[in-house]
Amino acid sequence: MKINVVKIGGNIVDSPEALRSFLNDFAAMPGAKILVHGGGKEATRLSAALGIETQMIDGRRVTDRETLDVVTMTYAGLINKRIVSLLQSIGCNAVGLTGADGNAIPAARRSPVPVDYGFVGDIIADEINVGFISSLLEAGVTPVFCAICHDRAGSLLNCNADGVASALAVAMSRVAEVNLTYCFEKPGVMADVNDDSSVIPLVTESSFIELKESGVVAKGMIPKIDNALKAVRSGVAQVRICQAENLCCDGGTIIKLK
Amino acid sequence: MKINVVKIGGNIVDSPEALRSFLNDFAAMPGAKILVHGGGKEATRLSAALGIETQMIDGRRVTDRETLDVVTMTYAGLINKRIVSLLQSIGCNAVGLTGADGNAIPAARRSPVPVDYGFVGDIIADEINVGFISSLLEAGVTPVFCAICHDRAGSLLNCNADGVASALAVAMSRVAEVNLTYCFEKPGVMADVNDDSSVIPLVTESSFIELKESGVVAKGMIPKIDNALKAVRSGVAQVRICQAENLCCDGGTIIKLK
Repeated sequence: MKINVVKIGGNIVDSPEALRSFLNDFAAMPGAKILVHGGGKEATRLSAALGIETQMIDGRRVTDRETLDVVTMTYAGLINKRIVSLLQSIGCNAVGLTGADGNAIPAARRSPVPVDYGFVGDIIADEINVGFISSLLEAGVTPVFCAICHDRAGSLLNCNADGVASALAVAMSRVAEVNLTYCFEKPGVMADVNDDSSVIPLVTESSFIELKESGVVAKGMIPKIDNALKAVRSGVAQVRICQAENLCCDGGTIIKLK
Repeated sequence: MKINVVKIGGNIVDSPEALRSFLNDFAAMPGAKILVHGGGKEATRLSAALGIETQMIDGRRVTDRETLDVVTMTYAGLINKRIVSLLQSIGCNAVGLTGADGNAIPAARRSPVPVDYGFVGDIIADEINVGFISSLLEAGVTPVFCAICHDRAGSLLNCNADGVASALAVAMSRVAEVNLTYCFEKPGVMADVNDDSSVIPLVTESSFIELKESGVVAKGMIPKIDNALKAVRSGVAQVRICQAENLCCDGGTIIKLK
């Protein structure tokens, strides 16, 4: 089996037109596939409407009990089911899941030291329920995951969607050849961040060292490539970073071991 | 295969203690089972907090676009995933679903004439995806349904949870022996509504006629028994009406053909 794992972020989720267009392309991808979606601005909007203060530390949402309810409602409810019903309408047999469903993705609540993020979890990658996810894929079902997972003790946990995508791709690599695609605002890893035509088509372990040494790769991009290389070192066939509108065409940056 | 379909209403969903206690009993039920849950007061609370007016006609929520988002967030997000994570914590491998997931339960938007309920749907019982639900049950998974379904054209629809339970029970009767249990505030069908010990243990098609003729069955109970008899006429082995706390014991009213 070959599996495509595709991750979309808030920029797609927040735009009805971009989301519809992306889902058409995603539905057209042949074979087994998994979609992971981020949260977008709905949770912040709902929190504001309910008078719950959104607190971010290092770009990470602090998730108290009320905020956990808000992200569960928006990510697992509103956004996830909206995506599922749109996919169903264009012939893609989607099933929307959190990591709690089928015990698909267990997570551990992050230590409150040094920063207490509340109900934020880190995925227990080795314990992803590969059998359950495989059985869905084999039945022609397309799982659509939001980044809400669970601690197996009755608590939901807010996790990072990039991390969910990467952990799923690595776990499914045990039973299949997996390609992981991150849909990104920029067209890929670029030699010049201001020049969309400067996309570097291939980054390998050795070329990454050169790109870092020569200062070509921008600072914000380094952890993304590090994570992608970590995924390919852990068994993922390749990671691709591209714009959502290029999902079905060539383009973007492919990250492989060599 | 034998399947138990159990429906709980808002009175259980709204009480954390009652819900936990019920889920312990539900998790302990052996064999294949499906849970259907109602909405409770969360949607009304969230609507009020967001300044959305809740309009009810004949006990049915009028579901405009904003209200559809609210019920999707609360039923498919908050309540459904809370139940799933609690069941997972006590060893029941639950998967939370709407009718859109796996195209499990298609519905048709109700005609706006004579009353426009907005995004309210009626289940297309013949097109319930029995194969998908069976495959989950055979894999030892327990589906947990809220009453959000879809029109297969990209729209979610708010349906009636009693109707979802009954339609699921009838559809699954094509492949299995199905018992349907409605957990109810009262201990069952009672000869005297003020006397909890007056539960009528068995109602059949012929005894129902007598109960109606003699005026023993209260008015509000008649449509419930009518619906239960409709389900048994359509293949469900038996319908039971009991209190949630009696799920695993005897008691309540069993409704059978004869």
